[in-house]
Amino acid sequence: MRTIGIGIAGAGTVGGTLIDRLVADRAAVTARTGLDLEVRRVALRDLDRPRSFDKGAAVISGDVMELVADSRVDLVVEVIGGLEPAGSLVVAALEAGKPVVTANKELVAARGPELLAVAAGAGVPLLFEAAVGGGIPIIRPLTETLAGERIDRVMGIVNGTTNFILTAMADGGSDYATALAEAQRLGYAEPDPAADVSGADAAAKGVILAGLAFGVWVGVDDVHREGIERLSPADFEMAARLGHVLKLLAIAERRPDGVVVRVHPALVPATHPLAAIRGATNAIFIEGSSVGELLFAGPGAGGEPTAMAVLGDVIDAARGLLGGSVVVSPAPAATGGAGSFDSTPTQWCLRLEVEDSPGVLAQIAAAFGEAGVSIKLVRQDGRGEGASLLMVTHGATEVAQRSAVGALRRLHAVREVASTIRVEGDEA
Amino acid sequence: MRTIGIGIAGAGTVGGTLIDRLVADRAAVTARTGLDLEVRRVALRDLDRPRSFDKGAAVISGDVMELVADSRVDLVVEVIGGLEPAGSLVVAALEAGKPVVTANKELVAARGPELLAVAAGAGVPLLFEAAVGGGIPIIRPLTETLAGERIDRVMGIVNGTTNFILTAMADGGSDYATALAEAQRLGYAEPDPAADVSGADAAAKGVILAGLAFGVWVGVDDVHREGIERLSPADFEMAARLGHVLKLLAIAERRPDGVVVRVHPALVPATHPLAAIRGATNAIFIEGSSVGELLFAGPGAGGEPTAMAVLGDVIDAARGLLGGSVVVSPAPAATGGAGSFDSTPTQWCLRLEVEDSPGVLAQIAAAFGEAGVSIKLVRQDGRGEGASLLMVTHGATEVAQRSAVGALRRLHAVREVASTIRVEGDEA
Repeated sequence: MRTIGIGIAGAGTVGGTLIDRLVADRAAVTARTGLDLEVRRVALRDLDRPRSFDKGAAVISGDVMELVADSRVDLVVEVIGGLEPAGSLVVAALEAGKPVVTANKELVAARGPELLAVAAGAGVPLLFEAAVGGGIPIIRPLTETLAGERIDRVMGIVNGTTNFILTAMADGGSDYATALAEAQRLGYAEPDPAADVSGADAAAKGVILAGLAFGVWVGVDDVHREGIERLSPADFEMAARLGHVLKLLAIAERRPDGVVVRVHPALVPATHPLAAIRGATNAIFIEGSSVGELLFAGPGAGGEPTAMAVLGDVIDAARGLLGGSVVVSPAPAATGGAGSFDSTPTQWCLRLEVEDSPGVLAQIAAAFGEAGVSIKLVRQDGRGEGASLLMVTHGATEVAQRSAVGALRRLHAVREVASTIRVEGDEA
Repeated sequence: MRTIGIGIAGAGTVGGTLIDRLVADRAAVTARTGLDLEVRRVALRDLDRPRSFDKGAAVISGDVMELVADSRVDLVVEVIGGLEPAGSLVVAALEAGKPVVTANKELVAARGPELLAVAAGAGVPLLFEAAVGGGIPIIRPLTETLAGERIDRVMGIVNGTTNFILTAMADGGSDYATALAEAQRLGYAEPDPAADVSGADAAAKGVILAGLAFGVWVGVDDVHREGIERLSPADFEMAARLGHVLKLLAIAERRPDGVVVRVHPALVPATHPLAAIRGATNAIFIEGSSVGELLFAGPGAGGEPTAMAVLGDVIDAARGLLGGSVVVSPAPAATGGAGSFDSTPTQWCLRLEVEDSPGVLAQIAAAFGEAGVSIKLVRQDGRGEGASLLMVTHGATEVAQRSAVGALRRLHAVREVASTIRVEGDEA
């Protein structure tokens, strides 16, 4: 049996777990797959930091490029994250004819088509199952099983940190700061949570999902992105009162003018499959023209599940090296082709503080009507000095919805537009 | 571009939809996949029956073996179902070096290892994504993405007909016969529903899932199988009272003495991901040692979703024929290795009609204790002449649970063991 030499860049949570698995369970992996995989080189940014993994026979280097230079490394795993030096490593390894497995959503989102073209040119695969949805197998189903299907929309809860925080806010009625602090204490949120709570992480994953589902790789900057930082307990009350649940969604859809990717909090009906996805779990919901609705759910992050997704790709690539199969990365897709978010239909839910005087509702209705937005539901709570209105619109373009809200803000009788949140997965 | 010739055996719901898609949408499939697929021969059992599909350039034959003999057919799709002539066709096509795509769970369950060995020997793939879970991509995730994972258990709602009936009984409180008649009227159940309601269809799918997850192909006759025919409205009331939902589950698990596959109704906690799977939807829930819990849900049957799963395999196999990749079927697995169901731990829920006299509960508890089964919960409803007891046990071996129930039946104070249903996915 030929031994396949593995080189790994990065030994953080995912890399360390992967090395442990490959070194300690080497015989078990062989028994299960018929492959002998040996970790031969590990590149670490900080050589002085204490290591928690058993390096086995591996040589430790400080420079990731040594993984490319080392002829005993047949296959490169990149789990350092970030754009550089990860990008240079991936390109150099592919050009040297070494298959690459990466979990780097930022890199794949930003440079996917280019890197896939390098892989295709070199005739070796670039695999990245772990970049979206952690341990959830989603890339093979999208690119292989559903190859004949016309996918219309992909909607995902693809960030475990924010889903954990939103679940805590919904269950406990706590405010955002408290829920975030609790998530940090339990290790579900980073000390600097910006990339998660701002939706940036979800946006990168949305770009990758769109690329695989539609063959169009939208720029990360083309993604309309809103985070969860401004959600308040009142928003969760509003959601519950309407029989909905608040989720941060990454949505990729095929529109007549191109592909639109957006990330924002959304009200989802409590009966929708995504509403049941709680805590740090991730889920991806696919709407296809023939297949209908598919849901994939599982652990979106964590060392073990993500390392297993990386290991699945490593096994696949190793089989390819042994000639058992020629593994093909997802096809290089076109860049660009982003559609206009402004012309995308959305449905909105609004919370308004208004004067409780006759004719207020008529003024509000007129403002919506002029913007071309029709109202699905109005609910008034509280009487006397002022009143709270909950309003749900029917679907209309983003630009129409925003123009309606602008008009509301100019109405004297509207004291405050306290909250505007989109609604997804509704029947209307 | 080389055109790939497709031969299709069977033009029922799935085959007809597939032909429509391949013929009418030929250019669209080419645009999406870069492949030119032409249906060149269709084999029909009954040549005189009116056809609803457009056969395009295809020749119609009465004998399925003509698909093998026709040199213009590069790839064979088998969607006739049943063991014969499907089995002979699949073997002959593989031996002639033609990749085979099948949706035939009965054939794959009964002869999987043998057929996969023929495919491996001939160096061509045998693909069967549509045989389990209809349109849900499950075979590639199990065999490729999770290749490095130790899977402990696979639990599925894999029969849409029974899940439709159970959902109707839970929602409407109707009895089995009424719900079945409604399912038949709406086309969710066949005029002869035996294969579905007896659990036989689910058992075949359970065998396939076990083969892929554990590499051990259990005989269909080794599957412990109970259908849904005897479930009553009282069972659904019991489930609801306990915060559970009644589902027909196919369960495949790895036990120390081998692989155990079983199909039976089960109480599932309302908070379990499988509890939310309603109507004709299917779902497969995977428990792995590293990845934790994964859920795949989607349309389990129906012409369109199943035809799309077949088409995904056809595209995969066609790419292989063009040299873009060498497509590998799931590895041939070992036959046998079935573990003992009797020694498998299960948890039971019982409904008893008992005399309402002092000491009855002590007698019942003693019977459980002697059998080595401990009681988790007892709930008594009704007083006076007689009483109803709901009991939930902790986990114990099947044989112990059955022995406890046998002892209960011998107790004078127990008028009737009205129902025994296993509990799955509970915390205890």
